[in-house]
Amino acid sequence: MFDTAIIGTGPAGLSAAISLKMRGKDVVWFGSMEMSPKVERSEKIANYPGVGIVGGKELNESFRAHAKALELEPVDKMVTGITKLRDRYVLLAENDMFEAKTVLLAIGSVAAKGFPGEAEYLGHGVSYCATCDGMFYKGKTIAVFCGAKRFEHEVRYLADIAEKVYLFAAYPDCGIELPNVELMTAKIKAVNGEKRISTLSLTDGAELPVNGLFCLRNAVAPTALLKNLELDGPHIAVDRKQATNLPGCFAAGDCTGLPYQIAKAVGEGNVAAHTILDYIAEQEETK
Amino acid sequence: MFDTAIIGTGPAGLSAAISLKMRGKDVVWFGSMEMSPKVERSEKIANYPGVGIVGGKELNESFRAHAKALELEPVDKMVTGITKLRDRYVLLAENDMFEAKTVLLAIGSVAAKGFPGEAEYLGHGVSYCATCDGMFYKGKTIAVFCGAKRFEHEVRYLADIAEKVYLFAAYPDCGIELPNVELMTAKIKAVNGEKRISTLSLTDGAELPVNGLFCLRNAVAPTALLKNLELDGPHIAVDRKQATNLPGCFAAGDCTGLPYQIAKAVGEGNVAAHTILDYIAEQEETK
Repeated sequence: MFDTAIIGTGPAGLSAAISLKMRGKDVVWFGSMEMSPKVERSEKIANYPGVGIVGGKELNESFRAHAKALELEPVDKMVTGITKLRDRYVLLAENDMFEAKTVLLAIGSVAAKGFPGEAEYLGHGVSYCATCDGMFYKGKTIAVFCGAKRFEHEVRYLADIAEKVYLFAAYPDCGIELPNVELMTAKIKAVNGEKRISTLSLTDGAELPVNGLFCLRNAVAPTALLKNLELDGPHIAVDRKQATNLPGCFAAGDCTGLPYQIAKAVGEGNVAAHTILDYIAEQEETK
Repeated sequence: MFDTAIIGTGPAGLSAAISLKMRGKDVVWFGSMEMSPKVERSEKIANYPGVGIVGGKELNESFRAHAKALELEPVDKMVTGITKLRDRYVLLAENDMFEAKTVLLAIGSVAAKGFPGEAEYLGHGVSYCATCDGMFYKGKTIAVFCGAKRFEHEVRYLADIAEKVYLFAAYPDCGIELPNVELMTAKIKAVNGEKRISTLSLTDGAELPVNGLFCLRNAVAPTALLKNLELDGPHIAVDRKQATNLPGCFAAGDCTGLPYQIAKAVGEGNVAAHTILDYIAEQEETK
């Protein structure tokens, strides 16, 4: 069992991973060595103290180098569900299970909001995992929301199975050209259905009939990830120690609210790491 | 009138100063270009994301360079008192007055605790400002607590006035050798007296009779600085937005509590800056 499962390789997740690793904790860290796409795409960053005025690419590379220097390597799998047991959390990451005493959600702000209706139909036509659920859509019509270029291999996998794929790419230069894949220009506005998903409302006014929707993102909306997690508007509610309402579950970075800033995320990741150290120590004392 | 007065040039104060300056705010920043003596003295820092594993001296120099790159220059005066008026704060820094719409306390953890009894006798024999109060001790016996080498010129100034100076230096290699200055090896344990200070209890058991005590530190204990400021134990009580109980007064960094970490301080300084921006915008709307 791991001491901590950290979800997210942006500044908050990295900051926590570094501090926990340095304190000898056994950490499983989920995300990509792309680190933070948001930092990567920033033209210029001037208010992260100590690095001066730098390009986002450069700072993101420094984050990556820092992780490597401490031999921190993320598990490049998407965590699609977390279950709280009495004394631990069980995480489902694609087709693998992981157990950890504590969980840190550092999943960014984008993940904080799914499409309207998305969480409702999770498991009823909405899926976050192509390799887990793809086989159910043999010969069917599906929509795929692809949040980043790195998920394109999953889109190809789904296109092999489904008869027809409507592809919503959240980034420019989508590299997929397949006869049964239609690249959409409108965006998804809402997910509709009765017991199961039946249509998507699009921003151009169209209602698109589909049998399923795959959302391929760096992270999953927090309430879909973990039942009974308390929110504060679209964000995860935390206290000054970065504790959520669920014992042993912490959150840091953009997912806890404004300002969406690197310095704030790094600070919260650090605080969360220290709270996690205290929490684990306390749990061990009371054993 | 300034938009914000920031007190402290450690990571929290720097982080806030950078963010406010970049948003075009008029900031007066109190402290020394020494930046953070605590960072400076750290042998190795490995958990400030993005800079890798660095020496404290090196990171502190990067902080200084970042401030210089943005033309941020601190006012090297000690703020010894802050008064809240209806719509602004008035700060006394040595013999100068400054007015600001908001105040950010980023005064570190050391300042959070004075000597037992110190706050009680403030203005009754305890002073934080040599040039303000020195003249009252002509021909008298005083004790001086000197928190850093940079205050030694104030000790010399006091030694010119007082008949006898007991000097408590909080750092090695004190450079003062004067006939009427006695460098003490014991430390100050408590400040005693009735209406005024009369003796100091020392760690070696001695009771030292004095007419006054000058405490020369980078910052003053927060409750001595600002009346009615709410504490949480030895720290300044703040919410997740870094707001204190006093409208327009914010706090960030070690002075708000554990963990005493650079990343945490930088994050809180950033959050405080954003709260200050919101606060100023709101005040202007309601005018």
